[in-house]
Amino acid sequence: MEIGIVGLGRMGANIARRLMAAGHGTVVNDLNAAAIAALAADGARPAVSLAELAKLLAPPRAIWLMLPAGAVTENAVLEAATVLKPGDVLIDGGNSFFKDSVRRGQMLAEKGIHFLDVGTSGGVWGLERGFCLMIGGDGEAVRRLDPIFAALAPGKGHIEKTEGRDGRDPRPEQGYMHTGPTGSGHFAKMVHNGIEYGMMQSYAEGFHILETRGDANLPAAERFDYDVADLAELWRRGSVISSWLLDLTSNALTKDPALSAFTGSVPDSGEGRWTVEAAIEQAVPAEVLAAAIFARFRSRRDHTFAEKLLSALRQQFGGHRESP
Amino acid sequence: MEIGIVGLGRMGANIARRLMAAGHGTVVNDLNAAAIAALAADGARPAVSLAELAKLLAPPRAIWLMLPAGAVTENAVLEAATVLKPGDVLIDGGNSFFKDSVRRGQMLAEKGIHFLDVGTSGGVWGLERGFCLMIGGDGEAVRRLDPIFAALAPGKGHIEKTEGRDGRDPRPEQGYMHTGPTGSGHFAKMVHNGIEYGMMQSYAEGFHILETRGDANLPAAERFDYDVADLAELWRRGSVISSWLLDLTSNALTKDPALSAFTGSVPDSGEGRWTVEAAIEQAVPAEVLAAAIFARFRSRRDHTFAEKLLSALRQQFGGHRESP
Amino acid sequence: MEIGIVGLGRMGANIARRLMAAGHGTVVNDLNAAAIAALAADGARPAVSLAELAKLLAPPRAIWLMLPAGAVTENAVLEAATVLKPGDVLIDGGNSFFKDSVRRGQMLAEKGIHFLDVGTSGGVWGLERGFCLMIGGDGEAVRRLDPIFAALAPGKGHIEKTEGRDGRDPRPEQGYMHTGPTGSGHFAKMVHNGIEYGMMQSYAEGFHILETRGDANLPAAERFDYDVADLAELWRRGSVISSWLLDLTSNALTKDPALSAFTGSVPDSGEGRWTVEAAIEQAVPAEVLAAAIFARFRSRRDHTFAEKLLSALRQQFGGHRESP
Amino acid sequence: MEIGIVGLGRMGANIARRLMAAGHGTVVNDLNAAAIAALAADGARPAVSLAELAKLLAPPRAIWLMLPAGAVTENAVLEAATVLKPGDVLIDGGNSFFKDSVRRGQMLAEKGIHFLDVGTSGGVWGLERGFCLMIGGDGEAVRRLDPIFAALAPGKGHIEKTEGRDGRDPRPEQGYMHTGPTGSGHFAKMVHNGIEYGMMQSYAEGFHILETRGDANLPAAERFDYDVADLAELWRRGSVISSWLLDLTSNALTKDPALSAFTGSVPDSGEGRWTVEAAIEQAVPAEVLAAAIFARFRSRRDHTFAEKLLSALRQQFGGHRESP
Repeated sequence: MEIGIVGLGRMGANIARRLMAAGHGTVVNDLNAAAIAALAADGARPAVSLAELAKLLAPPRAIWLMLPAGAVTENAVLEAATVLKPGDVLIDGGNSFFKDSVRRGQMLAEKGIHFLDVGTSGGVWGLERGFCLMIGGDGEAVRRLDPIFAALAPGKGHIEKTEGRDGRDPRPEQGYMHTGPTGSGHFAKMVHNGIEYGMMQSYAEGFHILETRGDANLPAAERFDYDVADLAELWRRGSVISSWLLDLTSNALTKDPALSAFTGSVPDSGEGRWTVEAAIEQAVPAEVLAAAIFARFRSRRDHTFAEKLLSALRQQFGGHRESP
Repeated sequence: MEIGIVGLGRMGANIARRLMAAGHGTVVNDLNAAAIAALAADGARPAVSLAELAKLLAPPRAIWLMLPAGAVTENAVLEAATVLKPGDVLIDGGNSFFKDSVRRGQMLAEKGIHFLDVGTSGGVWGLERGFCLMIGGDGEAVRRLDPIFAALAPGKGHIEKTEGRDGRDPRPEQGYMHTGPTGSGHFAKMVHNGIEYGMMQSYAEGFHILETRGDANLPAAERFDYDVADLAELWRRGSVISSWLLDLTSNALTKDPALSAFTGSVPDSGEGRWTVEAAIEQAVPAEVLAAAIFARFRSRRDHTFAEKLLSALRQQFGGHRESP
Repeated sequence: MEIGIVGLGRMGANIARRLMAAGHGTVVNDLNAAAIAALAADGARPAVSLAELAKLLAPPRAIWLMLPAGAVTENAVLEAATVLKPGDVLIDGGNSFFKDSVRRGQMLAEKGIHFLDVGTSGGVWGLERGFCLMIGGDGEAVRRLDPIFAALAPGKGHIEKTEGRDGRDPRPEQGYMHTGPTGSGHFAKMVHNGIEYGMMQSYAEGFHILETRGDANLPAAERFDYDVADLAELWRRGSVISSWLLDLTSNALTKDPALSAFTGSVPDSGEGRWTVEAAIEQAVPAEVLAAAIFARFRSRRDHTFAEKLLSALRQQFGGHRESP
Repeated sequence: MEIGIVGLGRMGANIARRLMAAGHGTVVNDLNAAAIAALAADGARPAVSLAELAKLLAPPRAIWLMLPAGAVTENAVLEAATVLKPGDVLIDGGNSFFKDSVRRGQMLAEKGIHFLDVGTSGGVWGLERGFCLMIGGDGEAVRRLDPIFAALAPGKGHIEKTEGRDGRDPRPEQGYMHTGPTGSGHFAKMVHNGIEYGMMQSYAEGFHILETRGDANLPAAERFDYDVADLAELWRRGSVISSWLLDLTSNALTKDPALSAFTGSVPDSGEGRWTVEAAIEQAVPAEVLAAAIFARFRSRRDHTFAEKLLSALRQQFGGHRESP
């Protein structure tokens, strides 16, 4: 098949390359001409605009947007709505807010254009490992693009089969899934990232406890100077907490056990926030997911007004001074 | 009555002064001779040591320790155990860990010495407002020292009577209470301080949200520049969240609305930690009390190893950079 | 002055009565004719509809909505927009979401109608104690209605003056405040309630720890059977955690120390959720406020899917059974 | 080599079998004669007591205790201290509290007996997958028992090599590690389990959000009925959150998507609690790990006193009723 790809950042370029490696054709566009040229050198057909890209594709067309969530994606969807025709498919593979996807899907449906919101996990490793795809939208469009999704997904690989899956939808075992109606793909990806934040924070807190266990103010016999790189490596082997994130932890700590290349000022990309907001909307307790996002907020602030107020109150009622 | 007081810091000196103001006699001791002299000038009898202090008192004697929790209190208790006689009373008015108090009470009981663990709230305001006393230990000793406790406590004052208290123990309305056996006074004080941490953190987070609501990256029409000093003052008047801590918040913000005199590095005094440990021992969920103590821990650290690990992982899987 | 009041529930009726007690006139409307009649018996002028109410008032008119947030308030605002004229004032005293208030204020401003969003705290006690008012909107309208706000607010009462307030806006000391532009009143009230949730949860966790400290599986010498009603009463007297909520805690525990009249299924009214969402929007860590709302969510659910998954995982990796 | 094993529960029996499968000899003891007989049938030498077991081994002996933490392990250590001789090695492979291990190690060191605290992860899958071993104690004893540890550990298997490990201690790549002095093995295992609790709670909250996203009170277009079994399977494939715990989640949900076999009353085994206590001791913020343990506490309680107090307060200040 041939597909158009708009947005050739890390993720978009890797998607294009993985599709071409599987024998699919791509027509590519980006604001950055060099990014287009790099893909063209690898066999993609270049397009200077979304409109031109649409013209280069044969109907029924499929365009995959891989753009920053928010205004950039919104504008691309609006433009696509004007150039696409009934029966075409627009895919948003970015990290859009699921309520935006629901709205966009409704708007495009009125024009007869299919809209698929495809939550895409895999990061910079996707080219090699494949992408894990959560696909929301119309089943017919999902089926039509099956070769694309199958090519992007990791496939079964050497991962052990889960007992009892015979007779079930075979796609999840291949690494892609039709999650439900429009919006359900981005919602699932959002929760996926919320879980990711919680897992990352679990490791982070645990390693923080290990890394500070040698502190001189602890009793000498209860003080341990751990080789945290070795511990991370160890836990990859037969422990209950082995995971891909732990593989990366081992990589990072082996390279730099003190993590001195990092300041510890941690961004968030929206999904962690939205997951907590969804929990609130659904009245679901989500302590861990909330704590994980708050830890990132705090990491980006110097001392907060909240902390100053604590100090001010302690001085007021107890005459207490602050810590040095 | 006459009572010995060991430890003439802010709390101990105020206790001595409030007792003398009520007509009681005090014999006082401190490591700092100037502290003794200051109290002596106000009418206390000076003692150069705990042993001398014990000699100056007529049996059955009562000695009130008002010392830092931990080794200092432990040493004073051990010394008192050698100089006191059966029938005497030793009081620990400090913030000792309740399990230490249980242990000390047992040790002293074997010698026939009464031990009272008296959780004491009131801070630097106690001289004027009176101290709120949570008294654990033998009922007979509590009754014998009733005049002391009654003098230290605030009394009924103008605080509205709680309906339904007629026929109940009148002492809680006066501001002191026999909470139960040895250890129960310090345990109650510990939970009191745990609650205090939670309340302080509640105000702190709320004011942090208000104080940052003028941030330039919010939509202009939803951006508010609050006068936080006025808000704190306002809420003292008829709102559901009025409290003594809010009175102090209003004081602090009126004096310095930006709290620029504070860095925001917030100590903790042990009770907040022990409250969470007690919750864990009892398998009681205590999210808010735990979050309050963790916020203080975080306030005293620069970027943590935990945060650096989050950054390292994000770089590993997504090629993401840190926040500037 | 005369003012129209729409919505005669607990809050609205008390507002009307407090205004009439201060010599103001009221024209009142409610869906429930009996509620109108009750107020009319106390001197209010009845109106069968918002439209009639508007007619009965002399321009420039002021109408105070005291209705459930959401659709009911929305409809009333839309209706008022059609019956009010330029120069009139519409007040929303309910617990509306501040972004709705911003939107409504803009819509009404286009018609020359003033809109004030008035966060109103005081609960069922407001008639007697007065209401604490956080007023957002146009300064001119706030000034015009000053007699109304002054009558509703508690006034200075016997509350101690905060040092340093001389020369400042005197209104916060009276219990009402012009917090800023439209939306700022409801935002401030929202944060107020967020803090309230945090404080309530702080007391709740603390008393839970006290109430379970007599559990038979604790070491006998460290087991305490507290009289929690006495402790709550005690802490009203000179302790750092005295507050109006603690007064109510003492009331409740004195009446029923086991709180056996309650199941523990706790609703929330929106503000706690919105406060956490505002914290997320502003990237402010708000652990305690989030934990407080999640505790309510959890209280309303029987065992959750989350908990079942924990059990399922423990069985999978460890062959563990659930607790009995 | 030959080794004695005391405690033939799930873990102990699997350890014995894995060692025998690797060609090592075992002498086994348990309170339950049937458990001894079962192992004897598989080639172990039976012993009716720890004392007899010690006699059957040739010096320098090694005994592995695999017993419930607490009193049972304490008694076994005390008994072993009387039957072992200088140069022998006692191993505690259970989930003991690390401070107990430090104390026991000191006690045994005074008798010239080596003590190794071996945190052992792997659960019921260890026989097949191998056990992940965190070994604290004297390096000489660790080296002497290397064949035992190597046989129990999973070995390199097909797990991808971490870049940069050349030249480092090869043992962590095999799945066992000498973590440091006595106590450091159990401390590392404790943190491992703390992380495990956090990860489990992350998945639990995420799947709870997914599972309730079909609730009828959500807007119809934003309501999704997920096949959670498919989602768990999907995320095993190329997603950032793939892990062994997710493999087990997929197993569990495939078998029973509603998890109807579980009540959701979740035990904890101590390590989660101790991890939070260690965080408190080290003043390390550990929000997520604390929230994870509190969620388990809450799961084992019906409505709490805390929740009843919230309801009581709401009734007091607002006349509010509880949720139905």
